[in-house]
Amino acid sequence: MNNKRIEESLLKSIKGYEHRKSYDSAFKNQPKGTILDSSSKNIKDKVKRTKVIDSLKDAIIKAGVKNGMTISFHHHFRAGDKLVMMVTDLLSEMGIKDIRIASSSLANCHGGLVEHIKSGVVNRIESSGLRGRLANEISEGILGENPAVIRSHGGRARAIVEGDLKIDVAFLAASSSDCMGNANGVKGKSICGSLGYAMVDAQYADKVIVVTDTLVDYPNFPQSIPQTVVDYVVVVDEIGDSKGIMSGATRFTSNPKELLMAKRVLDVMLASGLFKDGFSMQTGSGGASLAVTRFVKEELIKQGIKCSYALGGITKPMVELLEEGLVKQLYDVQSFDLFAAESVGKNKRHVEVSADFYANPFNKSAGVNNLDFVILSALEIDTDFNVNVISGSDGVIRAASGGHSDTAAAAKISILVAPLTRGRISTVIDQVTTVVTPGSTVDVVVTDYGVAVNPNRDDLKEKFIEAGINVVTLNELRNIAIRLLGTPKEIEFTDEVIAVIEYRDGSIIDVVKKIKK
Amino acid sequence: MNNKRIEESLLKSIKGYEHRKSYDSAFKNQPKGTILDSSSKNIKDKVKRTKVIDSLKDAIIKAGVKNGMTISFHHHFRAGDKLVMMVTDLLSEMGIKDIRIASSSLANCHGGLVEHIKSGVVNRIESSGLRGRLANEISEGILGENPAVIRSHGGRARAIVEGDLKIDVAFLAASSSDCMGNANGVKGKSICGSLGYAMVDAQYADKVIVVTDTLVDYPNFPQSIPQTVVDYVVVVDEIGDSKGIMSGATRFTSNPKELLMAKRVLDVMLASGLFKDGFSMQTGSGGASLAVTRFVKEELIKQGIKCSYALGGITKPMVELLEEGLVKQLYDVQSFDLFAAESVGKNKRHVEVSADFYANPFNKSAGVNNLDFVILSALEIDTDFNVNVISGSDGVIRAASGGHSDTAAAAKISILVAPLTRGRISTVIDQVTTVVTPGSTVDVVVTDYGVAVNPNRDDLKEKFIEAGINVVTLNELRNIAIRLLGTPKEIEFTDEVIAVIEYRDGSIIDVVKKIKK
Repeated sequence: MNNKRIEESLLKSIKGYEHRKSYDSAFKNQPKGTILDSSSKNIKDKVKRTKVIDSLKDAIIKAGVKNGMTISFHHHFRAGDKLVMMVTDLLSEMGIKDIRIASSSLANCHGGLVEHIKSGVVNRIESSGLRGRLANEISEGILGENPAVIRSHGGRARAIVEGDLKIDVAFLAASSSDCMGNANGVKGKSICGSLGYAMVDAQYADKVIVVTDTLVDYPNFPQSIPQTVVDYVVVVDEIGDSKGIMSGATRFTSNPKELLMAKRVLDVMLASGLFKDGFSMQTGSGGASLAVTRFVKEELIKQGIKCSYALGGITKPMVELLEEGLVKQLYDVQSFDLFAAESVGKNKRHVEVSADFYANPFNKSAGVNNLDFVILSALEIDTDFNVNVISGSDGVIRAASGGHSDTAAAAKISILVAPLTRGRISTVIDQVTTVVTPGSTVDVVVTDYGVAVNPNRDDLKEKFIEAGINVVTLNELRNIAIRLLGTPKEIEFTDEVIAVIEYRDGSIIDVVKKIKK
Repeated sequence: MNNKRIEESLLKSIKGYEHRKSYDSAFKNQPKGTILDSSSKNIKDKVKRTKVIDSLKDAIIKAGVKNGMTISFHHHFRAGDKLVMMVTDLLSEMGIKDIRIASSSLANCHGGLVEHIKSGVVNRIESSGLRGRLANEISEGILGENPAVIRSHGGRARAIVEGDLKIDVAFLAASSSDCMGNANGVKGKSICGSLGYAMVDAQYADKVIVVTDTLVDYPNFPQSIPQTVVDYVVVVDEIGDSKGIMSGATRFTSNPKELLMAKRVLDVMLASGLFKDGFSMQTGSGGASLAVTRFVKEELIKQGIKCSYALGGITKPMVELLEEGLVKQLYDVQSFDLFAAESVGKNKRHVEVSADFYANPFNKSAGVNNLDFVILSALEIDTDFNVNVISGSDGVIRAASGGHSDTAAAAKISILVAPLTRGRISTVIDQVTTVVTPGSTVDVVVTDYGVAVNPNRDDLKEKFIEAGINVVTLNELRNIAIRLLGTPKEIEFTDEVIAVIEYRDGSIIDVVKKIKK
């Protein structure tokens, strides 16, 4: 069919087809990009059947990374990530400047970014969390006129989907990939489990580069990242260290105070009336919060009921509930330990979900929307129930927003669990250093000195009192803390904003200012 | 936190945040839609935790179906579909006019649309295929100035993703759903298997209504359609008849002529040099094409090799290959029989894929791109290798475009298999009645009278001759057909265009005109 069969004059006479093109040849109208080998003469060789590129540097060049662009990463390897530094070191070597790093989170292993900020390779940072040296330097104002942007996991998904955060090139560490970019985090030399955060970047970034240390035969399975969104595949020696997944934030507790609080959380759940067959829950990281899962398990067995689903960052105790049939399904946006990382690749009811599914407040319903309970930790809580999970009482950024505000807003009952004091620092104070989660979305605060209930949840308060729970007010807790530790010294801040805290809907809930020395 | 903590004047001083809003309340900025119950005062009741609507009519009203809109359906129930008529009957009752029906395909069971076209409820039809009474009436010109639009499965996915085909409301028949719209085709009273076509509609339609006859506890599993894209869930008595899935197009042959041709296809595959460990294939519908799978199986066993993946509409023989370990993975965009429909819900290596993954020519690589072989059927083939799979030699529409042109373009070797004559009708002719698949993408034509090779594939021709295959030209085949049946009578057409045939890239490859009586 060398001659056009349909004259465009004929098309002009058909309603709706006046401006359409008639067929020319099979690959004539293909969009520019990476799908075709335009140099090939043979029509059957035009379709590219591999995306493997020789080196990460070549991929950076082909993807067209330029000064001022936004590149993204995921943090599924947590403290074991190697890709952020690998890529930024190369950008530095290539003389590229003013890059915005949009990572789902950043950890202690990313201290090296400080040099890249100093040298101008990186000038903006967006992340759920900041820790260690990078957090310290950002708190000192190293980013200058571009404060760091802190988002919740749902808020980041929303920002990407809605176009607030436009990613030019996404670099996705995957523990295995095939030649077309079908990738996952459950096979290969260094697994990380769910690729939930990466899924959103993969779908919306202009260019997507999968970086793996394990290239497998086509087709790879499962396809957490599908080939339909991937431009290039690069094989490197080592993408990350699986052992880094399990960081301090997910340790298991034998601390009697934490166990006591965990037991109180269970009491609250039981008294709420929602602990019944088919209820759902999420437990965050933090010793007491994780210990809750153990107590829930005992109670499920005792009552002979089941949990319908558990959501969020998934840990070994949750996987055990699944394996024992005590929870029907796990939605895993992030595997918090190696046990969970292995399970998500094996157990079909351990379902990998994207950050969009997990918590995007603007889609047609996120996984968090059907939660009965969420158990969350806190660095600080103020007497209006506002919660700080990002900065220390010294005003220095040290942690992560995570799914805290997403789950607190959506769950029927959000339960904060925190000791009243940590060393010489009080948790319940007059005003939190930084607001991440607004108090209106926090229902219950469980401490070792009693349980406080949000005044807008008098329904719960009555039930708790009836169940014999020691209900106190946050003011009472604050006063106890003052008696124990004295009035905390106010930190003095400069006017310099070093980080902006976005609420999940994109509004600005707080800023972090530089402290006065 | 009743008072805004962050003054917008402060935001104005932060680079990039000059026009951003500060936080107000937890659900203040939620987009209009179906996620929130704005009537609720209690913040924790604002999040809607069910999408179930009392009746299909209520859902139509809530979704805002109006005159002139486009509504979409999938055809996974094939001849057993009940939803298209259920919805259009309601639209008729409600007095709604000028609706465009965009279905992934339409079948014999949709003859009732003729009345809705006559009464003005429906004025446009877009589909992969048309059959029976509806096809006959459209061929007679019932759609007037709005010719039917025929797209391939990959072309439809492209049109939806690129915005050529904007769907206002998608109606998705699902054999099971939970209250939030997590839906699939593998559980419930009437299963249909993969929901591959529906996935694209679900992701891109403005409003999405899941219609099911089996409401299950939250969360449903698997989630072929995720809750993140669903607005409403409606429960009806019966969404479809599973028995309708297995139609004539997927029958198994005992016809000696078809078995002979199937054997020749295998000979061609073997001679091509691509039949080696890890090769991939798709077999279309049609007796001979399906029989090929049987011969492939014997050969795989004989040679002790495996097929890497099989793609497309999946049939029982393909599932058996998977279960016997002879193919590593099935990508199922459509389950062609109940056996396949059951398998896709059970066997994790029987993977449900969307029409976008299957064949969208504009994504970063579709499943078809890595095919070694595709085996396809044809109604007519002309001496330029152009193929007609949509209209009969009488000029009347009677079949479907399907994935024919998608796979032909992308596979390394596309093999057409068709008998030279069917009754008094010749398959190989001078010019096909309607071009669906351009000849440049067709490599080999296998008939009961010999094997023709596209002149641009001399590489294959040499191999076939060497292997002792009876290689002929299409001209020779055309001449044999004329000797057997005489010269076919030319059909005379009017100038009235009754259907437009879009190629997968959106260009117009042909039109169907009304025949002169």
